[in-house]
Amino acid sequence: MQLELLGTGSAGGMPLFGCPCAACEQARQNPKLSRESACARISHGEQSILIDAGLSDLHRRYGSADLSHMLLTHFHMDHVQGLFPLRWGRDAKIKVIGPDDPKGADDLFKHPGILDFSTKAHAFEPFPLAGMTITPLPLNHSRPTLGYVFEADGQRMAYLTDTLGLPEGTEDWLKMHPCDILVVDCSFPPTPSPRNHNDLGEALRIIEISRAKQGVLTHISDRMALWLLEHEAELPGHVRAAHDGMLLRPADAA
Amino acid sequence: MQLELLGTGSAGGMPLFGCPCAACEQARQNPKLSRESACARISHGEQSILIDAGLSDLHRRYGSADLSHMLLTHFHMDHVQGLFPLRWGRDAKIKVIGPDDPKGADDLFKHPGILDFSTKAHAFEPFPLAGMTITPLPLNHSRPTLGYVFEADGQRMAYLTDTLGLPEGTEDWLKMHPCDILVVDCSFPPTPSPRNHNDLGEALRIIEISRAKQGVLTHISDRMALWLLEHEAELPGHVRAAHDGMLLRPADAA
Repeated sequence: MQLELLGTGSAGGMPLFGCPCAACEQARQNPKLSRESACARISHGEQSILIDAGLSDLHRRYGSADLSHMLLTHFHMDHVQGLFPLRWGRDAKIKVIGPDDPKGADDLFKHPGILDFSTKAHAFEPFPLAGMTITPLPLNHSRPTLGYVFEADGQRMAYLTDTLGLPEGTEDWLKMHPCDILVVDCSFPPTPSPRNHNDLGEALRIIEISRAKQGVLTHISDRMALWLLEHEAELPGHVRAAHDGMLLRPADAA
Repeated sequence: MQLELLGTGSAGGMPLFGCPCAACEQARQNPKLSRESACARISHGEQSILIDAGLSDLHRRYGSADLSHMLLTHFHMDHVQGLFPLRWGRDAKIKVIGPDDPKGADDLFKHPGILDFSTKAHAFEPFPLAGMTITPLPLNHSRPTLGYVFEADGQRMAYLTDTLGLPEGTEDWLKMHPCDILVVDCSFPPTPSPRNHNDLGEALRIIEISRAKQGVLTHISDRMALWLLEHEAELPGHVRAAHDGMLLRPADAA
């Protein structure tokens, strides 16, 4: 298995429009430091699945041979915006599997085009796809939201965003199924009362209790990026911040 | 005045995902032939206004000094998608003027961020902005939709998309106020019963009855692009197809 992190930013991406902070300025100067909204690609052998659609250029980046199945964590715009142009494709069908959220996003369900939303993912009900076993785990967010755990070849990777803390059942599941790599929402630096997304303390607590060999922080806002500029070396040795284009392989986490 | 056409494609952009047609293939090979969704920028002297937000990278393309006012034709996703990351900007405010459509798009009105939607445009009620007089004209589309006519220095340019034909009042207004340049929805090649958007016949009829000196076809689908590949030379001398990056100046239309 291999997980490619395509978009590791929060809803406004990095740099944020108009923002004069040092992290946004650096991202403006060096596009390698910019961050797209949430998107990842998990591959197993020759097969791959897209996770979330925060990238707006998915319809250009991929051909129909690359993109037959997608997983959605939830229907906030920064996780689905790439679906809007994609749906008007031709000669292709894409099965989009996600939580049962009747409203979806804007008019996606009314005009799905080539997207097939008929298959729902259900909490703690594993299903096979692309040679992997995928287990949806409920998260704590302002809409129905699922994280996903991918298992194959005796390896396990988790992708858990967006969330603030974890529901008890999800914590229990993770304790019983330690992951090689756990990618987790860390939108904010240490914050007294984070809302709707983890701050660093909560993200580290989740990595700790899940006993993941490696923790990767994602959904990084400019505020978190600003914190990393000064404090990245203070992260525990098995924890690092995601960046766009990062490749994660369980074997590397051993 | 100068009108820069930034996005001249229809909702799926060009090339369409998965589409094997010759127009999409050519656009895949040559990015200059690709088309973004609807977006334009009208400038007068040092000031400029964005029209529609079909470009997904507006938050990267422009700084807050470039982008203080926007006009929206309507709230379909391919005309507003660039607003979603833009709204989370900092140290900036953007006044977004458009038709009175209480639903807006997805959660834009619930979480407007730096966008100020409080000013509505009203049919046939001109207002001054950026040294121009702007007249909203109602169009025929599946949501409340306004075209805009820009006047300054004795010159007049119209931007009329999305529409199928025109309401009678809009036709009458255009007959009484001939434009130097008229940019108009031409989503489809000649089509027996076009839906929600002009086909070529309808677009040419609008250019004809409005007595515009120059007509420019926009919102071009791959089907229309395919027609242009073979038939562009058959267009009337004062009519041409838009492409992304096209600059229109009334003086050139004389």
